Amino acid sequence: MGGRRSRSRGYRAERELVNELWRLGFAVMRAPASGAKIKKADYPDIVAVRKGKVAVFEVKSRAKTQTIYLEKEQVHKLLNFTERAGGKAYIAIRIPHKGWKFIRAEQLQETKGGRLKVTKQQIINAPNLAGVLKDLGLIKSLEEYVGKGI
Amino acid sequence: MGGRRSRSRGYRAERELVNELWRLGFAVMRAPASGAKIKKADYPDIVAVRKGKVAVFEVKSRAKTQTIYLEKEQVHKLLNFTERAGGKAYIAIRIPHKGWKFIRAEQLQETKGGRLKVTKQQIINAPNLAGVLKDLGLIKSLEEYVGKGI
Repeated sequence: MGGRRSRSRGYRAERELVNELWRLGFAVMRAPASGAKIKKADYPDIVAVRKGKVAVFEVKSRAKTQTIYLEKEQVHKLLNFTERAGGKAYIAIRIPHKGWKFIRAEQLQETKGGRLKVTKQQIINAPNLAGVLKDLGLIKSLEEYVGKGI
Repeated sequence: MGGRRSRSRGYRAERELVNELWRLGFAVMRAPASGAKIKKADYPDIVAVRKGKVAVFEVKSRAKTQTIYLEKEQVHKLLNFTERAGGKAYIAIRIPHKGWKFIRAEQLQETKGGRLKVTKQQIINAPNLAGVLKDLGLIKSLEEYVGKGI
């Protein structure tokens, strides 16, 4: 956590997801980078909209599959934003050689310390981007996703 | 045009519109400020989504009511983004003591020099934010808008 290397990895992961969503036909907005005039925490990392279907992402990049912790306040902001938009909120997790995993923000579990977490097992079981498209009603089946050549 | 004063005025205008849209129940994303790592031109100034209804804004702030010119390429990017999102694109114009005026991007007129423009008369005739809400199907009438206390 923290450090210039992990921030840079997080930045690259965001850009990769932005590009993939754009390629799938979404209009995609990315939050201002940290250090810009606007506080990053006020915005989700990525908002993607396709034909009125909205997916909102908080992006986490990790070197290996491990439990990920989030602050409640950040998740509450994510859920508030998503409810206004009328969309679905995801924690998007990028792990080298495992690709992307998407966990609905509502599925986060509370820790004893009052934070929220995605467990290692949840990450292992989580769907990839095809799951998000199905969730949004943008594709009906995995076959259709494969048909898009992804 | 240009200069630190007009950029700062543009920045304040954007922030004002973001706040007003947020107050009206939209989830609002603002493009990264110029100078951030991401090229500002790749994103519209503001994207607002309420219950799956999407409004995309290019914001212009002017000291008085006057014809406003835009580059074709910027407008094409705005329209491409908006078509992907399944929304409506506006040029949002802020003029002191006149408030906000909204012109649909499709209503821009071509200049002889190959740019696009909003004429002074179009600005005078343009609706305010209530017009955008009606356009999006979020309110039925001006009365309902007034009922929201705006």
